[in-house]
Amino acid sequence: MKVSARNTFSGTVSNITKGAVNSEVVLELKGGVSIVATVTNGAVTNLGLKNGDAAFAIVKASSVIIGTDLHDAKVSARNMFCGTIATIIEGPVSTEVDIEIGGGNLVSAVITHGSSMKLGLKVGGHACAMFKASSVILGVA
Amino acid sequence: MKVSARNTFSGTVSNITKGAVNSEVVLELKGGVSIVATVTNGAVTNLGLKNGDAAFAIVKASSVIIGTDLHDAKVSARNMFCGTIATIIEGPVSTEVDIEIGGGNLVSAVITHGSSMKLGLKVGGHACAMFKASSVILGVA
Amino acid sequence: MKVSARNTFSGTVSNITKGAVNSEVVLELKGGVSIVATVTNGAVTNLGLKNGDAAFAIVKASSVIIGTDLHDAKVSARNMFCGTIATIIEGPVSTEVDIEIGGGNLVSAVITHGSSMKLGLKVGGHACAMFKASSVILGVA
Repeated sequence: MKVSARNTFSGTVSNITKGAVNSEVVLELKGGVSIVATVTNGAVTNLGLKNGDAAFAIVKASSVIIGTDLHDAKVSARNMFCGTIATIIEGPVSTEVDIEIGGGNLVSAVITHGSSMKLGLKVGGHACAMFKASSVILGVA
Repeated sequence: MKVSARNTFSGTVSNITKGAVNSEVVLELKGGVSIVATVTNGAVTNLGLKNGDAAFAIVKASSVIIGTDLHDAKVSARNMFCGTIATIIEGPVSTEVDIEIGGGNLVSAVITHGSSMKLGLKVGGHACAMFKASSVILGVA
Repeated sequence: MKVSARNTFSGTVSNITKGAVNSEVVLELKGGVSIVATVTNGAVTNLGLKNGDAAFAIVKASSVIIGTDLHDAKVSARNMFCGTIATIIEGPVSTEVDIEIGGGNLVSAVITHGSSMKLGLKVGGHACAMFKASSVILGVA
């Protein structure tokens, strides 16, 4: 399987909370970092997900918000990764920003050119990437 | 009503599962294909949705992930359509990919230029479009 | 905190409905307009959100759909703002559209160039911006 989504993270399912429609699934990555995903119960059943299973998280670059000065940010987005800006690709409307978050992992975001200018993003600068649990797709090999 | 979202699908509501906050709504399209949407209970009430109602699903192109070699893919995304790539429009950051999924229907996706290159997408090639139930907006005429 | 998301709205929490996994939070803005957000229960707990709290809503421009002739539209998207198109920035694939919704507030959307053409959007024209409750990130200062 090859997908267009720029961000994939491999880990182990460490917790599943089931509601009537959706489930919250926590995926523990190497190094103790976790990703929180909300998917439908049907998806949990289809994938046969249970604690301890190997799984991966897929996140589209367009679902990722870039922030700076987020040290004391209090936001509802359950997933946040901070690091160093590795690449910036500018277009007339959209800008792609890739952040190195350690361990050779990159998080890619597509934001507006206007936001990129406003935030003053530069390669080598510090920035954080955040995304909602509802933006995460889970997969199993 | 005219909306910017590139993807609209007409169908009939075939199932509604209500939770405390969200409902899962299944829309059966012509030919037996289904689309799964999660919307708030408030939306179900506002629209007066019930089984057998005609409704349509709206999906933004930016919510759609393109994949290849997805034949044995196991992902949580509840909606997947496969077909032939009809159009590719390249930009410096973003690329639009339109997939013909039969019956004259197109699914449009906006992905990064980098992903398009990585996947080696070409007009006439086979590809699949997938999107989460939470990315679907429902409407009634 | 500075984020790339183009749309932020300040308001007061006026209602929280808790489910097993997600909560629906209503944020009342000045002038009586409301924004509906669905976030995980974990996020509500992390932020300590309760009725009467000041909070803000963050929405990525890529989550916003632009519509015209929406006066009698019936869609599940819980959030809709109408006004006058203030800016259009065209790219080969993406187009940014900014709508003035009164009180000096702007809502920014990134849509495809093709949709912008199809809708015939022009600066000074009337249009509406809509987004799902699940696209909203909440924050507190």
